[in-house]
Amino acid sequence: MEKKKLRIGLIGTGFMGRTHSNGFNRITNFFPNLAYEPVMQAVCSRNEEKVKAFAEQWGYASYETDWRKLIARDDIDAVDICTPNDTHAEISIAAAKAGKMILCEKPLSRTLAEGEEMVKEIEAAGVKNTTWYNYRRLPAVTLAKQIVDSGKLGRIFHYRANFLQDWTISPDLPQGGAGTWRLDVEAAGSGVTGDLLAHCIDTALWINGGITDVSAMTETFIKERVHTESGQVQKVGIDDACLFHCHFENGSLGLFESTRYARGHKALYTFEINGEHASLRWDLHDLNRLEMYDHADESIVRGWKSILVTDGDQPYMDKWWVPGLSIGYEHSFVHQAADFLKSLETGEPCSPTFREALQTQKVCEAVIDSAKQKQWKDTNVEWPC
Amino acid sequence: MEKKKLRIGLIGTGFMGRTHSNGFNRITNFFPNLAYEPVMQAVCSRNEEKVKAFAEQWGYASYETDWRKLIARDDIDAVDICTPNDTHAEISIAAAKAGKMILCEKPLSRTLAEGEEMVKEIEAAGVKNTTWYNYRRLPAVTLAKQIVDSGKLGRIFHYRANFLQDWTISPDLPQGGAGTWRLDVEAAGSGVTGDLLAHCIDTALWINGGITDVSAMTETFIKERVHTESGQVQKVGIDDACLFHCHFENGSLGLFESTRYARGHKALYTFEINGEHASLRWDLHDLNRLEMYDHADESIVRGWKSILVTDGDQPYMDKWWVPGLSIGYEHSFVHQAADFLKSLETGEPCSPTFREALQTQKVCEAVIDSAKQKQWKDTNVEWPC
Amino acid sequence: MEKKKLRIGLIGTGFMGRTHSNGFNRITNFFPNLAYEPVMQAVCSRNEEKVKAFAEQWGYASYETDWRKLIARDDIDAVDICTPNDTHAEISIAAAKAGKMILCEKPLSRTLAEGEEMVKEIEAAGVKNTTWYNYRRLPAVTLAKQIVDSGKLGRIFHYRANFLQDWTISPDLPQGGAGTWRLDVEAAGSGVTGDLLAHCIDTALWINGGITDVSAMTETFIKERVHTESGQVQKVGIDDACLFHCHFENGSLGLFESTRYARGHKALYTFEINGEHASLRWDLHDLNRLEMYDHADESIVRGWKSILVTDGDQPYMDKWWVPGLSIGYEHSFVHQAADFLKSLETGEPCSPTFREALQTQKVCEAVIDSAKQKQWKDTNVEWPC
Amino acid sequence: MEKKKLRIGLIGTGFMGRTHSNGFNRITNFFPNLAYEPVMQAVCSRNEEKVKAFAEQWGYASYETDWRKLIARDDIDAVDICTPNDTHAEISIAAAKAGKMILCEKPLSRTLAEGEEMVKEIEAAGVKNTTWYNYRRLPAVTLAKQIVDSGKLGRIFHYRANFLQDWTISPDLPQGGAGTWRLDVEAAGSGVTGDLLAHCIDTALWINGGITDVSAMTETFIKERVHTESGQVQKVGIDDACLFHCHFENGSLGLFESTRYARGHKALYTFEINGEHASLRWDLHDLNRLEMYDHADESIVRGWKSILVTDGDQPYMDKWWVPGLSIGYEHSFVHQAADFLKSLETGEPCSPTFREALQTQKVCEAVIDSAKQKQWKDTNVEWPC
Repeated sequence: MEKKKLRIGLIGTGFMGRTHSNGFNRITNFFPNLAYEPVMQAVCSRNEEKVKAFAEQWGYASYETDWRKLIARDDIDAVDICTPNDTHAEISIAAAKAGKMILCEKPLSRTLAEGEEMVKEIEAAGVKNTTWYNYRRLPAVTLAKQIVDSGKLGRIFHYRANFLQDWTISPDLPQGGAGTWRLDVEAAGSGVTGDLLAHCIDTALWINGGITDVSAMTETFIKERVHTESGQVQKVGIDDACLFHCHFENGSLGLFESTRYARGHKALYTFEINGEHASLRWDLHDLNRLEMYDHADESIVRGWKSILVTDGDQPYMDKWWVPGLSIGYEHSFVHQAADFLKSLETGEPCSPTFREALQTQKVCEAVIDSAKQKQWKDTNVEWPC
Repeated sequence: MEKKKLRIGLIGTGFMGRTHSNGFNRITNFFPNLAYEPVMQAVCSRNEEKVKAFAEQWGYASYETDWRKLIARDDIDAVDICTPNDTHAEISIAAAKAGKMILCEKPLSRTLAEGEEMVKEIEAAGVKNTTWYNYRRLPAVTLAKQIVDSGKLGRIFHYRANFLQDWTISPDLPQGGAGTWRLDVEAAGSGVTGDLLAHCIDTALWINGGITDVSAMTETFIKERVHTESGQVQKVGIDDACLFHCHFENGSLGLFESTRYARGHKALYTFEINGEHASLRWDLHDLNRLEMYDHADESIVRGWKSILVTDGDQPYMDKWWVPGLSIGYEHSFVHQAADFLKSLETGEPCSPTFREALQTQKVCEAVIDSAKQKQWKDTNVEWPC
Repeated sequence: MEKKKLRIGLIGTGFMGRTHSNGFNRITNFFPNLAYEPVMQAVCSRNEEKVKAFAEQWGYASYETDWRKLIARDDIDAVDICTPNDTHAEISIAAAKAGKMILCEKPLSRTLAEGEEMVKEIEAAGVKNTTWYNYRRLPAVTLAKQIVDSGKLGRIFHYRANFLQDWTISPDLPQGGAGTWRLDVEAAGSGVTGDLLAHCIDTALWINGGITDVSAMTETFIKERVHTESGQVQKVGIDDACLFHCHFENGSLGLFESTRYARGHKALYTFEINGEHASLRWDLHDLNRLEMYDHADESIVRGWKSILVTDGDQPYMDKWWVPGLSIGYEHSFVHQAADFLKSLETGEPCSPTFREALQTQKVCEAVIDSAKQKQWKDTNVEWPC
Repeated sequence: MEKKKLRIGLIGTGFMGRTHSNGFNRITNFFPNLAYEPVMQAVCSRNEEKVKAFAEQWGYASYETDWRKLIARDDIDAVDICTPNDTHAEISIAAAKAGKMILCEKPLSRTLAEGEEMVKEIEAAGVKNTTWYNYRRLPAVTLAKQIVDSGKLGRIFHYRANFLQDWTISPDLPQGGAGTWRLDVEAAGSGVTGDLLAHCIDTALWINGGITDVSAMTETFIKERVHTESGQVQKVGIDDACLFHCHFENGSLGLFESTRYARGHKALYTFEINGEHASLRWDLHDLNRLEMYDHADESIVRGWKSILVTDGDQPYMDKWWVPGLSIGYEHSFVHQAADFLKSLETGEPCSPTFREALQTQKVCEAVIDSAKQKQWKDTNVEWPC
């Protein structure tokens, strides 16, 4: 069977450029039955030497150093945006106007206003779009969604999530530049809120539905850092930590926390859902497992079950190895790439669309406003949206 | 060596009456070198048949059915209050006026006003006093305090704690009466805030210092329950869940949660402290362990250490068995009883005193007010106080 | 109701003297409904000053310095033997001849011949007897037995257990004397085989039935140690480590290991049972939990369950606190004391009787012979026996 | 820089054909700085339709249906053997005679004699060779090796490993044929011994050195199964379970177990090493972690450390993502492929060579003989060999 081609143009060759490239590169080996296959058509980055090396390493047929040229090319079907947050709006709007499909790294935007503009333009252009909230597509997380959707948990009382890191504790770390643009509020828009909490919020909306109002606090522990561009010590504009509680539409209470100052935690994204009849919890540091407590179990042998999600009847796992053999972080991107290709085949949207990712932005903005103004903020995020 | 006697009069024969009685009953076996020994002089409860059986079971020499009589007795040195929260103020103030030492079960009081009155009267009477925040005295928790005090963690960024249970999920559970007075706002003052969060707050103040302001939310999931006394369906006045974030005096951020609707958790009290150089965490379900991450460890072998706190050089453990052999929940009360007796010997206060316990009440009241008014509340709790 | 009295005479005031005394001391508080109550009548040890202090600390009404005198007393109903292994035979046989009930610390004896003599004499005397294999009576272990007996596991394929410690790694540790008599082959009979593996074997026989033949290896890592009595460096006669595999009567394979040279493990007694339909495992370092895997669970949510054994419907736990609140090592002795008293009431034997404990000796002897002769040895241990 | 090419011919398209192909397919993306790059030149399997599809899926430029033709081709530099065990000898010897480099899936051979013949011929031919004992190259396992080699553990007392599965419990599973050839003794040579224990033995020799003698037991729980080829119920010739203990050259004791009847375990390969000063343990179900206990830690905070092996200064991890983000099972094959390519560059052997893999066969054969004859067997395996 001749496959249809999806010719991809990637913009940005940093950490996310690698994860997305790897995502598409694995499709042929592991998802051989899709109607579409990805073609690594072009990659773009400003430094020619680096982008050339990247193209060679990741199998892109060509490269550009100006993203406008990449977007202008006729031989590109989809633009994949992996650049810092301050460029998402401009590039995606331009790409949409050029009629390209768009895959955008999260968070959608720096601000809600930026995101709203993006959604307006992309939807006006009518192009296919998705946002890389990759953690949804880890098998254990997808399984959690399935279990909740099955009604097994009953009424939900609590949803809690956190994302804890420790990589910015040193005051010697600069803000701005490759590797540290996430500390520069101009490039990033926010600190942990857009970088880490956005993941937690996306998963929460997907699994537990809309969020109505939030009360938050943020903190910037290191107030000044050298800026890579100016070489000067400058005020730090991002939030180093962000905590909030909220109400979900379904009446459950949410509790969220993220920080880059939790010594000992590298990428500890965890969530837990407590329902009337059962509870679930998950931890990115042990990503192949889902834990579940089922009150329906016989009383004397009730307990939290550690479900190793590696069997062929569990989400995505028929594509990989045999029971007991784990997969890793990178596979979440492979799954998202596969799901995007599949969505071309079915004509369905590939969630989270820009519109869905905008709901996460709404929560983020309410969170930051709430922290700034020290008061509750309505988000009015309904789900599905 | 002839031991001095501490003649104890216990009021209340419920769950806490048992834990306190056991605490004192173990002293002779496990703390033989104290200058004071407890004498189980009298126990008081309204039901004569039950109090008589309790006295026999727990070795009390006599019993009363009216607590005023117990307080009036000359042969009682210390009154130990294990009754529901709505009686703490009246009994403790009467006992103080009668010149008795007072040991009061937590929380100190239903409201801050009640607690302030208690502290005023007890301090005016000049009687020795303490509050049973027992979890402090689990060896792993005391070790955490020692490690923080040693400065090993450096600047503290985060303190988080939760106390999760699931025993009130059924709407068939009544409010009021033995076993369920904790669901009756008249008897309890509050729900999980005074019952569970108060423990978390006490430990937090002790280990991490004062709390300046809080922002909270509460929820009552089951709005109406039959009241045991009236037999009528009545509005539920307690909080079923309570979440808050706060600032500590030392600049760290606090995050607290408690609920009785977290299916699968029976008494999951956990805390975690993230410092610049090291982090600590603990979990009541595995209470003999303390976990620690020490950034000073060599880079390639850094990790969270699971410290089994059962060695003779760790807090309290020289009194028990040999390395590797664990103790349980009840031992926290034995340690508090021992520390109280020791404080008679040294003349030092036995922390937490009523004054210290009042600081926890201040936080609780601010938390409840904050939730009610949907705004931040100052607590102004300094520590030491 | 007037209780019947069981007047106890304890011989030996070391570590086990403390655990047994505590076991009986807790009965009145926690098992108030037994028909019998223990009376701490007398304790015996050679050093008068120490035994006097022990009597005071543990509430014995009197003391002796010669065990023969204790046995000769009319006011003693039961003799509890907590002395080193080399005295078990002599004391228990003398006690039996004096018509006393006997509770003997494990292992029953140093050698099989010694044990056989003991069983012959005790049974000839017709006195009530039991052996303190305490770990059986931890609630999670008893629950494991119940689950296996229910047939839930189906055909058993594997039983494995180990008991790992690290307290004798230092070559500076002497052999012989208080605290180190377990390193002296004269006093102990064997090393880890009788001390640690005996526990594993007792549990295994109880849960999984008879053992037919064994193949073992032993090692003495530190070949010479100063002997406390002679002050001389002497050859070490005990086994520092012992490993064996075996066949059970039911066709399952056994694998056992114990050592005092497993750096990092203090008292890591674990066992695991793999059956056709389900598996169980347990770990003394987290003694309130039992883990279970049930193949009957729905495929996509199968996993190992961590059962917190603290509920009132689980073995022994109705006597203690509330769900989620753990007990410790010492409680196993309280349960055994209670079960012994209960057996006086029912007239049933209190397992493990001397005869049952002798089966463990048979396995131990076969293990040591197998290691010495480097060949398989038949044990022919049937269960029940 | 122009890369040198290694033109690979893969024989066998089952599970291992997939893992090896993936191993080589990832090199360009993740190991861009190697002097050699793999070229997927040809793949061979008997079924033309299937091998053609496999070639397309995995990017092989051509295919063969007769392995002799593949070996005869001039455009193949290295032959990668992924066929069942009964073909390893014939194919590898033919390939060696054709002057091809050889990469052979483990176990090297069905019997020791077969393996000896292979080593003789391959060494006579002087071709480069390696065996796919992939688990060595998981970062946590390699880190364990580094730590042991550093001397940090001191004298080693114990090495224990097991490999537990549960996939053959059903008596309905046939023997022989695709997916179940591992149950057919003709094809496999042995059961769990060659399939699972061989992995444990390879790691053990590599980390802990030579094994001198063994004492083993094996069991075949299901005695008869339908054979796929004959359609008849036939006697099962493989071992379903195998347990052994042994001495290492360094004086430590080894304990090994493997089975396919441990309900609840899918691929539970674990090992633990106890040394005088420190211990290590690892578990394939949580493969990114290494646990370590270091007695040199300060006494009151000693404990088992859970080392998340995801940092750039830990083995192989500079090639992948950022700290905290895990990799999976398949990466072990990528690492082995990279190490093989690297060894072409350096001219060093790529361990385990056939000669090294033969030592594992020696242990396996001694184990099976020991079980059959019920006696200890010398292995005389020295390491390095």
